[in-house]
Amino acid sequence: MSKKIVIIGGVAAGPKTACRVKRLLPEAEVTIIDQDSLISYGGCGIPYYVSGDVSDEKELRNTSFHMTRDESFFLNAKGVNVRANTRALAIDRTKKTVTVEILTTGGKDEVPYDQLVIATGSRPNILPIAGADLDGVFTVSDLHKAIDIKDRIAKGKVSKAVVIGGGAIGIEMAEAFTDLWGLETTIIEFMPQLMPRLIDRPFAMMLEAHLREQGVAVFTGEGASAIEADDDGKVCRVVTPNRSLDADLVIMAAGVRARSELAVEAGLAVSQTGNIMVNDRLQTSDPNIYAAGDCIEVKNILTGKGSIAPMGSLANREGRIVGDNLAGIPTTYKGWVGSFVMKAFERCIGATGLSLDSARAEGFDADAVITAQSDRAHFFPTQAIIPLRLVFDKTTRRVLGVQGFGPANDAVLARIDAAAGIIAKGGTIDDISQLEMAYAPPFATALDALNAAGNVADNLAAERLRYISVEDFLNWMDDFSSHEDWLALDIRHPKETEPFVNKYQEKWISTPYIDIRRRYQDLPKDKTMLIICDAGTRSYEIQTFLDSVGYRNTLVLGGGFNIIRRLGVNWWPQS
Amino acid sequence: MSKKIVIIGGVAAGPKTACRVKRLLPEAEVTIIDQDSLISYGGCGIPYYVSGDVSDEKELRNTSFHMTRDESFFLNAKGVNVRANTRALAIDRTKKTVTVEILTTGGKDEVPYDQLVIATGSRPNILPIAGADLDGVFTVSDLHKAIDIKDRIAKGKVSKAVVIGGGAIGIEMAEAFTDLWGLETTIIEFMPQLMPRLIDRPFAMMLEAHLREQGVAVFTGEGASAIEADDDGKVCRVVTPNRSLDADLVIMAAGVRARSELAVEAGLAVSQTGNIMVNDRLQTSDPNIYAAGDCIEVKNILTGKGSIAPMGSLANREGRIVGDNLAGIPTTYKGWVGSFVMKAFERCIGATGLSLDSARAEGFDADAVITAQSDRAHFFPTQAIIPLRLVFDKTTRRVLGVQGFGPANDAVLARIDAAAGIIAKGGTIDDISQLEMAYAPPFATALDALNAAGNVADNLAAERLRYISVEDFLNWMDDFSSHEDWLALDIRHPKETEPFVNKYQEKWISTPYIDIRRRYQDLPKDKTMLIICDAGTRSYEIQTFLDSVGYRNTLVLGGGFNIIRRLGVNWWPQS
Repeated sequence: MSKKIVIIGGVAAGPKTACRVKRLLPEAEVTIIDQDSLISYGGCGIPYYVSGDVSDEKELRNTSFHMTRDESFFLNAKGVNVRANTRALAIDRTKKTVTVEILTTGGKDEVPYDQLVIATGSRPNILPIAGADLDGVFTVSDLHKAIDIKDRIAKGKVSKAVVIGGGAIGIEMAEAFTDLWGLETTIIEFMPQLMPRLIDRPFAMMLEAHLREQGVAVFTGEGASAIEADDDGKVCRVVTPNRSLDADLVIMAAGVRARSELAVEAGLAVSQTGNIMVNDRLQTSDPNIYAAGDCIEVKNILTGKGSIAPMGSLANREGRIVGDNLAGIPTTYKGWVGSFVMKAFERCIGATGLSLDSARAEGFDADAVITAQSDRAHFFPTQAIIPLRLVFDKTTRRVLGVQGFGPANDAVLARIDAAAGIIAKGGTIDDISQLEMAYAPPFATALDALNAAGNVADNLAAERLRYISVEDFLNWMDDFSSHEDWLALDIRHPKETEPFVNKYQEKWISTPYIDIRRRYQDLPKDKTMLIICDAGTRSYEIQTFLDSVGYRNTLVLGGGFNIIRRLGVNWWPQS
Repeated sequence: MSKKIVIIGGVAAGPKTACRVKRLLPEAEVTIIDQDSLISYGGCGIPYYVSGDVSDEKELRNTSFHMTRDESFFLNAKGVNVRANTRALAIDRTKKTVTVEILTTGGKDEVPYDQLVIATGSRPNILPIAGADLDGVFTVSDLHKAIDIKDRIAKGKVSKAVVIGGGAIGIEMAEAFTDLWGLETTIIEFMPQLMPRLIDRPFAMMLEAHLREQGVAVFTGEGASAIEADDDGKVCRVVTPNRSLDADLVIMAAGVRARSELAVEAGLAVSQTGNIMVNDRLQTSDPNIYAAGDCIEVKNILTGKGSIAPMGSLANREGRIVGDNLAGIPTTYKGWVGSFVMKAFERCIGATGLSLDSARAEGFDADAVITAQSDRAHFFPTQAIIPLRLVFDKTTRRVLGVQGFGPANDAVLARIDAAAGIIAKGGTIDDISQLEMAYAPPFATALDALNAAGNVADNLAAERLRYISVEDFLNWMDDFSSHEDWLALDIRHPKETEPFVNKYQEKWISTPYIDIRRRYQDLPKDKTMLIICDAGTRSYEIQTFLDSVGYRNTLVLGGGFNIIRRLGVNWWPQS
């Protein structure tokens, strides 16, 4: 008799597992159970469906060869049975059955299995505030809600939207609302910055500044305390401790948590966060039951700890690994590093590994550099600056993370993907410095921006470079009294430094880069000079020179004003 | 007394060495000697200067902050002495001096050194054919020639150009001539394909087909036998064994060789190819003399052998390493893997590591897969197919190389850079499969195209997949009698298969993917069926199914017709 494999969950990890194991073990009887009528859709595409980039929701359910991934497709093309509209109610591990309810009829059934896969995904967090269940308040959790959201906007029922949550989904939805539909859109984020934990403050500031440029209002460090309705019972307002925001559409994008009730009730081991525990073959505490996707806890390669990684890209990788193991191929999952990329209007932001904040929170002796090099040859017409941050361990020189911000093309992606491989292999700063990035002027610089970040990190780790962080520089600019003995040594062109000298007077010395070697005697020795240029590289050069002539009272502003001018600071002189 | 460091060569490796060592060792006296008047320019930018993308040659000599890298810049900004127009004639290793000729005066001088760096680069090969020295025949070796070429075209003196050599420089120049200037341009390449050794035949064919689409004539397997002049002594014609091509401009881009005469005459060790031998600190056989850039032999990480890698990107990396070592920091060079990327009109081609042909020539038990996945979510409007080839060692599963072809954006770059790190770290197919490429629909697919290539390679290496190479398929299509028992099983949509069925009759069976599971009994068992779809993935699925029902007479055409339709084959049915 053929082996019976039952998979609970029909999006991402579930279908991937089903198709993989069916290819490896064609004689197996493979069944997917899902409570929804729509299955196997690209959930990450929802913001692009709402924005109109993707015109029809069917495109999210289609294959690349234009077939819709419905029950009959899975049966005829894949040989996989799908029971849609069927809710798994309980797992009986002794009898090896799943009790299901057929939602269209209310009838129940017992589905026997030899091996079971739990791919139940996650559900969005619903904040415990008044009005969370009002008409017009949505989570971005499934395709039905997406269709409903788009429908309301298309029918002209929405003019103001508030997005609660400044993570990737919230920002992507805000772009969809603003860019195509022209809604007045506000993002509120409870934490002090957008995309907390994923990126460090300077990158969150660049992102926030760009969102503001594009007309999105952003309030950070400010949670929703209530959602209010008009007399019709429809949402009309989001209230925070600081303000009241009109809204006829509210998106709640405040993170997700595992759907693991079935696993818990079946007595499978779960983590404190409720995520299903698996070994490196993605087997649960019951060897006949595997799990994959948002509902599991997976090992982070950098920390070695179990952690939560609810990402569609990982769900697909994990599904393949479960499929292998079901078929007797002992593939193991090495863990995740945390790569992501996101489009926000005309910008791309991405990261891999740990942010500096996260690395320190995890106990690493971590430091970081910021660079601001061009993505392609500076003489090539389409070149743009792509700020990068490289996070590393000062003791081991191991690379812990890379963050990038740039135009909405694939320039940041290339650097993130390149770093991801190095990080997963335990690589060091030197591996980044020597990483052989492909070069031609239309695509890169002879020494790639990522290599340059490695080189700066090398200088910092070896204590050849004395650095001031962007964060410390901003604090000083906000309040000079925080470091009264500091002043800026601005080595840019006098045309660039003039507004700063005019505004900040004795706090701002302008001595052009090209003149330092013959004019350094005019510089003060009793103050700490923060050397400022556009990218930080000239500043480092000047620091080494000044050191050699006895002026060791300098710190380099990493990344220079190419970074600072992207942060949307309010003290920047008006030109 | 301060240490005297003398560097022979003022482009790429030389200036990089000078600036790095001067930062590390500010007290050192650093001198660059170069016979040219122009130094430290971006030589790889020459085609973009000729095309007009870069309007002024000065931009190739400028820094990113708009200063020209001339003698006074190096002196004032970097503290580095430059002696331009100064030719090094001989190295006296006992006296530790370099004899130089000052080209402007004819005078001679002895330049003493404590440590010497040879960064003399390479010179273009001049083919030993009649007419190679005619007026109008150029190599692309320095900025003066580039200025002269552009000047002739801009003055309307050129209408037809012939490029001898189908490598990167030749192709980039052909694009410059055709795209902006509208010249009638022909490339001839002695080897049977464009970019020989760097890429395999299918990728060379895609490139060639695109060049043809863009109006460039291409003849491969055909060298220049003579260049002829008109009565004025100006070039007018390039003759090959097969044809005569009118030309008022000829570019000779037939590779380069090391400029190592100084090293040879000084008794330093050089390779059979004339490249200077160095250790992993880039020290020559004289410990006081280092060398970097096109003139040296460097270790290839994959083969472990010394080899030639004349690339600007490597020259810059090497310069930094020499700078470190001159300053007492024992940095070592781990070697190169062979990353490159190139724009050709509306396409990008890139590779890292070894091609399949090169890997086999090096003695690896190599095989390769071709895939044709989308660069971003298939529902995202800007998505495009990016053919990738992954070359691996069948015994060790080590990844040996990746090639890619796609639109002229950074999509191919991202995959090449990601693979380069894995290859340099000795990674396997599994590292590629699990490489955590960043994902969002505007930038990638949930399972990235590179991961997919890893997965297909995994299936092939584990002998789960029976594959027919693109090369073998083309041979069969050219002559069915080469495999009389083969036929195509085309599982694409009947609308797509119809022209093929009409043209190839009994050689072409059309059974849609979705129907195979219920119609397989109609398929022949006495012939080998080459399963054809768009990308190869459905074909693999069908192969596994057919195996399970006793039809093991199939081979999958890897990459499917997404690859084949890009090859410019003459047998494609006209629609």
